Amino acid sequence: MSNELARLSLNTATTKRWTLQEAVDGAVRAGLGSIGLWRDRVHEAGVTESAKIVADAGLRVSSLCRGGFLTAEDDRAAKVALDDNRRAIVEAATLGTRELVMVVGGLPASTEPGRPAQPGTGGRDIVAARQRVADRIGELAPFAAGHGVRLVLEALHPIFAADRAVISTLGQALDIAEPFPADVVGVVVDTYHVWWDPDLQRQIARAGAAGRIAGYQVCDWILPLASDALLSRGHVGDGFIDFPTITRWVAEAGYTGDVEVEIFNESIWDAPGDETVATLAARYLEHVQPFL
Amino acid sequence: MSNELARLSLNTATTKRWTLQEAVDGAVRAGLGSIGLWRDRVHEAGVTESAKIVADAGLRVSSLCRGGFLTAEDDRAAKVALDDNRRAIVEAATLGTRELVMVVGGLPASTEPGRPAQPGTGGRDIVAARQRVADRIGELAPFAAGHGVRLVLEALHPIFAADRAVISTLGQALDIAEPFPADVVGVVVDTYHVWWDPDLQRQIARAGAAGRIAGYQVCDWILPLASDALLSRGHVGDGFIDFPTITRWVAEAGYTGDVEVEIFNESIWDAPGDETVATLAARYLEHVQPFL
Repeated sequence: MSNELARLSLNTATTKRWTLQEAVDGAVRAGLGSIGLWRDRVHEAGVTESAKIVADAGLRVSSLCRGGFLTAEDDRAAKVALDDNRRAIVEAATLGTRELVMVVGGLPASTEPGRPAQPGTGGRDIVAARQRVADRIGELAPFAAGHGVRLVLEALHPIFAADRAVISTLGQALDIAEPFPADVVGVVVDTYHVWWDPDLQRQIARAGAAGRIAGYQVCDWILPLASDALLSRGHVGDGFIDFPTITRWVAEAGYTGDVEVEIFNESIWDAPGDETVATLAARYLEHVQPFL
Repeated sequence: MSNELARLSLNTATTKRWTLQEAVDGAVRAGLGSIGLWRDRVHEAGVTESAKIVADAGLRVSSLCRGGFLTAEDDRAAKVALDDNRRAIVEAATLGTRELVMVVGGLPASTEPGRPAQPGTGGRDIVAARQRVADRIGELAPFAAGHGVRLVLEALHPIFAADRAVISTLGQALDIAEPFPADVVGVVVDTYHVWWDPDLQRQIARAGAAGRIAGYQVCDWILPLASDALLSRGHVGDGFIDFPTITRWVAEAGYTGDVEVEIFNESIWDAPGDETVATLAARYLEHVQPFL
């Protein structure tokens, strides 16, 4: 059993009520090989202490979530964002992971994620917002490289294009990554965000050929949508996504890393953590692992 | 005033409480040049009578909504869908519009739009579902051509990929259209569905160069999402979409047709129809018309 789960990683956002120590213990109990960390849990425990907890448990850190939010129009807000990203890079290095997941940010017209647009005609230029992301990845890249950390661009589902990420496709993420070495800027394939993309197979192959697949995250697209769309994710197998096919594409692209389960969902958060981990392990063995 | 609104079209879905006659009268009162018809309102009034109402009012019919739902796996359901599409083609011809908008349908795992997926592992192959769409467009094309009607493929926002349309991008719609003459299979550019697409400018130009832009629909992406995501559309200017830029791209692509406003939104439906039409005309004059 533990061998079959060696590549499975529990993202701490999936068991939201658990502390970092509890999530590490839960992952070990279930025989998982890896854990994906969110910065809130890491800050709670302390960065150095978190690194020790994970290392003592013998787990890998598949990724640190998240850096990003790089689309601000004004220089002061941009500087604040860049400084925070540099701190995240240092944290990733301290935690012993190479992969820092970047949610790049939405339009300047976004007041806060999920909320109405600012009135007026400004802050809606998505082409310019994307260019600022590319420029600021360029500013961060040398610092990341110096710390042995990769900036991992995450394409978010277009449902989040206004308020969370102006990168909506894997192809677009790869276009932004292309000027940089593959070990400095990569991409993550998150089934929830990219399953609908008609160009997905080709872009996964392209990402693999370039050595840029930094992570593979799985959770399902379920309907009806939750009232907060961010929380509208389901366990693998509960929704509409064709996991065998996408997993094969990722495997054929040469990806041999961890498979992270990151689910935002109130009812899953309300379930006991061990039950959630047991479910995600069972679903992984049914829908994902045989196709890796 | 009426000249500036000559290309503005009221889609009957925007003033949902109005009958076809009321919508026609409302459009004429406001000085609009055109109307987009949904089949429910047309069937209510009768197809021939609807054609007469619109013609007597001196309006163009910018499009008929909608055909489609072509993704069924079993032959019997496919035949029912094809028969219904043939009826829609005849209706479009009778109404005097060339443009029949096609919402191509979601995954077979979809039980009904907005509802959970069927349990089990079947019905999730989106690649195969897209191929069935392409094949069935091929079956319908000669019948449409024979009636002087164009099958207008509508890329829907990926939020609807599971349950309403496995065509999610304009580029994908154009790929499916490519084997057919431009006056038999076209595409519609609906800002709500495509605004986030990083390849949008290029694909609009491609559609224009091929003579395939059959319609331009405008409404805004607003947040928070409505509890029924389908109804989460706003008046132009109330959300996040950069209408001047996209409108310029459409104009530069050579589009000279009508601009249809199609908004699904409970609170807009609850407003008096004349107020809704006045608002959409004002927003059109501010955000769209100057850039055409």
